[in-house]
Amino acid sequence: MADMADMATLTEKLDYVMASEQQISGDLNILWLMLGGFLVFFMQAGFALLEAGGVRAKNTKNILLKNVLDACMGSVIWWAIGYPLAYGDGGNAFIGGGDNFFMADQDYSDGGGFYAGWLFQWAFAATAATIVSGAVAERCTIKAYLIYTGVITGFIYPVAVHWGWSGDGWLSAFRSTDGDYDPYMGAQGLIDFAGSGIVHMTGGGAALMGAILLGPRKGRFSADGMVMDMPGHNTVLQALGTMILWFGWYGFNPVSTLCVAGCMTVAEKVAVTTTLSAGAGGVTAILIDVLWGNHLDIGPALNGILAGLVAITAPCSVVDGYAAVFIGIIGAAVEYLSAKMLLRLNIDDVLEASPVHFFTGAWGVLAAGLFATEENTIAGAYPGRSQDDWGLFYGGGGKQFGIQLCGVIAFAGWTCTMSGIMFAVLKVAGIFRVPPGDEEKGLDESHHGGSAYPEQLSKA
Amino acid sequence: MADMADMATLTEKLDYVMASEQQISGDLNILWLMLGGFLVFFMQAGFALLEAGGVRAKNTKNILLKNVLDACMGSVIWWAIGYPLAYGDGGNAFIGGGDNFFMADQDYSDGGGFYAGWLFQWAFAATAATIVSGAVAERCTIKAYLIYTGVITGFIYPVAVHWGWSGDGWLSAFRSTDGDYDPYMGAQGLIDFAGSGIVHMTGGGAALMGAILLGPRKGRFSADGMVMDMPGHNTVLQALGTMILWFGWYGFNPVSTLCVAGCMTVAEKVAVTTTLSAGAGGVTAILIDVLWGNHLDIGPALNGILAGLVAITAPCSVVDGYAAVFIGIIGAAVEYLSAKMLLRLNIDDVLEASPVHFFTGAWGVLAAGLFATEENTIAGAYPGRSQDDWGLFYGGGGKQFGIQLCGVIAFAGWTCTMSGIMFAVLKVAGIFRVPPGDEEKGLDESHHGGSAYPEQLSKA
Amino acid sequence: MADMADMATLTEKLDYVMASEQQISGDLNILWLMLGGFLVFFMQAGFALLEAGGVRAKNTKNILLKNVLDACMGSVIWWAIGYPLAYGDGGNAFIGGGDNFFMADQDYSDGGGFYAGWLFQWAFAATAATIVSGAVAERCTIKAYLIYTGVITGFIYPVAVHWGWSGDGWLSAFRSTDGDYDPYMGAQGLIDFAGSGIVHMTGGGAALMGAILLGPRKGRFSADGMVMDMPGHNTVLQALGTMILWFGWYGFNPVSTLCVAGCMTVAEKVAVTTTLSAGAGGVTAILIDVLWGNHLDIGPALNGILAGLVAITAPCSVVDGYAAVFIGIIGAAVEYLSAKMLLRLNIDDVLEASPVHFFTGAWGVLAAGLFATEENTIAGAYPGRSQDDWGLFYGGGGKQFGIQLCGVIAFAGWTCTMSGIMFAVLKVAGIFRVPPGDEEKGLDESHHGGSAYPEQLSKA
Repeated sequence: MADMADMATLTEKLDYVMASEQQISGDLNILWLMLGGFLVFFMQAGFALLEAGGVRAKNTKNILLKNVLDACMGSVIWWAIGYPLAYGDGGNAFIGGGDNFFMADQDYSDGGGFYAGWLFQWAFAATAATIVSGAVAERCTIKAYLIYTGVITGFIYPVAVHWGWSGDGWLSAFRSTDGDYDPYMGAQGLIDFAGSGIVHMTGGGAALMGAILLGPRKGRFSADGMVMDMPGHNTVLQALGTMILWFGWYGFNPVSTLCVAGCMTVAEKVAVTTTLSAGAGGVTAILIDVLWGNHLDIGPALNGILAGLVAITAPCSVVDGYAAVFIGIIGAAVEYLSAKMLLRLNIDDVLEASPVHFFTGAWGVLAAGLFATEENTIAGAYPGRSQDDWGLFYGGGGKQFGIQLCGVIAFAGWTCTMSGIMFAVLKVAGIFRVPPGDEEKGLDESHHGGSAYPEQLSKA
Repeated sequence: MADMADMATLTEKLDYVMASEQQISGDLNILWLMLGGFLVFFMQAGFALLEAGGVRAKNTKNILLKNVLDACMGSVIWWAIGYPLAYGDGGNAFIGGGDNFFMADQDYSDGGGFYAGWLFQWAFAATAATIVSGAVAERCTIKAYLIYTGVITGFIYPVAVHWGWSGDGWLSAFRSTDGDYDPYMGAQGLIDFAGSGIVHMTGGGAALMGAILLGPRKGRFSADGMVMDMPGHNTVLQALGTMILWFGWYGFNPVSTLCVAGCMTVAEKVAVTTTLSAGAGGVTAILIDVLWGNHLDIGPALNGILAGLVAITAPCSVVDGYAAVFIGIIGAAVEYLSAKMLLRLNIDDVLEASPVHFFTGAWGVLAAGLFATEENTIAGAYPGRSQDDWGLFYGGGGKQFGIQLCGVIAFAGWTCTMSGIMFAVLKVAGIFRVPPGDEEKGLDESHHGGSAYPEQLSKA
Repeated sequence: MADMADMATLTEKLDYVMASEQQISGDLNILWLMLGGFLVFFMQAGFALLEAGGVRAKNTKNILLKNVLDACMGSVIWWAIGYPLAYGDGGNAFIGGGDNFFMADQDYSDGGGFYAGWLFQWAFAATAATIVSGAVAERCTIKAYLIYTGVITGFIYPVAVHWGWSGDGWLSAFRSTDGDYDPYMGAQGLIDFAGSGIVHMTGGGAALMGAILLGPRKGRFSADGMVMDMPGHNTVLQALGTMILWFGWYGFNPVSTLCVAGCMTVAEKVAVTTTLSAGAGGVTAILIDVLWGNHLDIGPALNGILAGLVAITAPCSVVDGYAAVFIGIIGAAVEYLSAKMLLRLNIDDVLEASPVHFFTGAWGVLAAGLFATEENTIAGAYPGRSQDDWGLFYGGGGKQFGIQLCGVIAFAGWTCTMSGIMFAVLKVAGIFRVPPGDEEKGLDESHHGGSAYPEQLSKA
């Protein structure tokens, strides 16, 4: 017969095993978030190259400096005010805050995960901010850049995050429904898994407003509004930048499960939908471009890949593989056509930042409301939904699609209004745009101490 | 005395712990495979840079486009038909298939790991396909490229994978020996841990056939067959590409354990043998080149590193550290001498793709039959082998070496025959090679809308 | 009532669960170390680009070759003698060794972790060695390079590692205090978490001695000692290199926990302190440079980021977030001012390798003795310390600061003396510096078979 002493030993051992299993599980979540943070940070190198290759050689150092500073200033701003405004406990449904500015309230006794979460979110914030520099390239002052990037990282972006991802946000699917808050969105909330809306529309909307208010580069449009060719100076940098971004997106999307134990079947499917959408987007864009009458140029393929990636970022966890292919195809078309539209309107978004991030981001958010299947949504990160909460194409009856539409309007309204005001102030203050002579000469020569390539000769 | 209720509680708790441990273990395998997939995907950037740097500036956009499209088209083709032909359950010993085209038969109830496995294998498929573009660079049409890359990713490569890695393949070490199939290869099968044969010989063999059938670039050889210098345009891109490939190879080889729990002692040794072979290969190649009478140029060092990496890919899990050094040394020599041989035969493989991947890949497969030790093979991924199944140099008696030789002949025969037919058809159809005028002018100007570097002046 | 049979079954199951949990925990440590090794290896690409961009175009291949060979030769040397001299069991408090040369004593029965540890340490060794090439760029012979990189990787660096990190080292915090050894440093030891001193001071000190003994590049200083501008040829490469280094540093610092279970709360905080110090360093350096009267150039921002990273490498696990910001700020100032000082002394350290790695590394080691808090030090990797062992600013009473100062003196003395002797011998032997004509012409043309950019025209 088993006696009590044996039982006690067994129980003790078992408790030890359970505790260390829980420890490992928690440690794995941290490891996963860190891995994601590293990869998303590396996207900064991708943006830097994509943008450097897409501008003329005479503005290379300028755009590199902006990208590098986005990561640097972003870290300090996100530490000081960005993160607490996004996730701080003391706020309401519209803004966080109240504690943890400068990480002042953080210590080890809070248990693990805070720092890894901060890191992951910092890398996202730097992404949102860095999108803008591509749109206002080759003519925006460094002073204006310093101001706008601070405002976006420290205020505009954190509020969008608070709305969509925090436990308090009015749009959030992770909103606590018991206690103080009423759910604004019924029992559910926005499906924006890794941020087509929260990250890309926020950055892309500011990019759009910046490009509009700053006006086109000198010579970009003829007197009668025709588009003049103004190619970037290095295609290799653009291609490498895009591939680094694709690589980094594997941190962006799959790691947005935020957990390992029980979450990896979602994460792996996310990695696959991300891949299929990117691939389909790249192929589609080049097809459209050729049908449009152009040469087989690589630029459209690169933007098509990015469009596929942006589009799948919201719905990546709730759709099937073939839907991902379809989302990427439409995403590439949205990107291509919105870029053409901007040119028609004589808006000079140098890197097509708003077509890629804003318009395609909006498509991604809507796509989640169209293609979300029951099985994926439940197995995915959005459990606890009732029968009619799937995508419109899967019998969802339009409820989720309505929430997604609401999200698109909300993010577009927030980012365009706030950034529009900000850029208008910069413009009125006369510090938004460099003098025409400096633009002609190139910003590197006129503002940054000389060419990025001191030994190279270039045409004309 | 312990009563039944306590026991029941304990049992229940224990079952819970066991289940969640199994969950974590499964989740870790998925995480590991995803990490590998991300790293191997990043190798696409490495190939793109290596090839872009290795061609003349006037063909840069062309080669970049091919590399980018390999990843894009590869994702769609691998989803539609590649993966099911490689691993589909409904096939025979020679080809898979029967189900899961377009992932149609996949759902969550199948448990985890499918998607991560697909991702990892997709990245491998893209690698096999992208090897070819380096060999046929600067003169192959985009139309021919689109056809050949589709056929390789969708048919030639999946069949090789089926032979060597699937549970049904006639060469496979993972072949189920009970039930329907007789083991073709005795109780064992081919040792090709991460694909010196399956991936590199397949891509490299197609590269060889492509280079032969396409003929050399204009001016590569003089009328009397002398080699004319035709250097690539950017050494930095070549060096960075090679270092990215080395970095990505840490996904290729170590992650090919496909599992974490109980597999990490193999994976870490694989990481070390991979490192030693790469390092020894780089040093060896530069020594040979200097002894051959050349300057201390960096090109041989880069190809030597790649040769070391390709050579160790098959035997990385079954050999000791010093054997890895030796395998890298011989690999570099194989690469160097086969490249010289091709030039002697006036075959113009621009990037030395077939020396690096085909000839050195064959050496890697054979090396596993020479250097596999008992301890490593059992501890490694090839358990359940009897006493005489080690490498020839360790008392294996030649049985394993025979299987490896058989594998080399099979992969060489399959890939060269199939790709030879394909390229011959393209040639006869007159769509394989660009017109001489376009080649002279450069493909970027003649086919892709202008130079990759619109502002740069270049010599002559 | 529970009977003995049930109990036995339960006990058996429980033992099984405990064993497999321990297995997973061990496997995770290996996975973590491998991930770190991969990331730190990738830093080689970062150094290669940073250095290539920082030299004139005519010396590009030369510097790339040195960087590539550092990884290659490093692997073979670290395998043969470096690792055993650092960690071999048969040594004393000053040097390791005695066994495991060429991994000869390693087999699977030793359990897991050895190979992953070797890989991680190899990547660190390659980092230490590759720092030097930036300082002696554009004028050092390949012969001298081969000798000095061998001596550093195979002797100077392993000894520093042995002192600071091995279980026997006289400075080591991981020194076994029972048995044969008396603790030299009281019950504690040096806090140099990831190697501000051990790695960066060692590489940076050798860089300093190399730059001094080699003398400045022709034309770097005028006859009356004025600094002549001699900019690198490609800012994009410098920026990308820096971002790759930042990315790779996430392997360098966080993975230096060397474990997963119970270690991730430290690792995640390390990732955050690393980020904050890098960001603060980048912002600070550009501010100083502008205040100094210069244009908003990107070079200082890049070196400021690197200074922040080097400075936080020693104290990353024992300080709070705001301290990390402060350490990065001071680090950037140390880098900036020491670089100015070298120019004043007409010492030509081309890439500012010694300001970044040696002087800022020393600041990092000292900073650990200033800012280490009790909570962080205990929760971090330095448990078992008594009450007065914290940083000077937190009531540590100077004991730890004294040890840190002792470490700085020891590493500076060791690396400068040894490398000074080595470089002096090379100089006396007349094989240290290329002939003036070769320097003028550029090393690529005179030693490496031609330009890295065969098609490009360049100015003058």
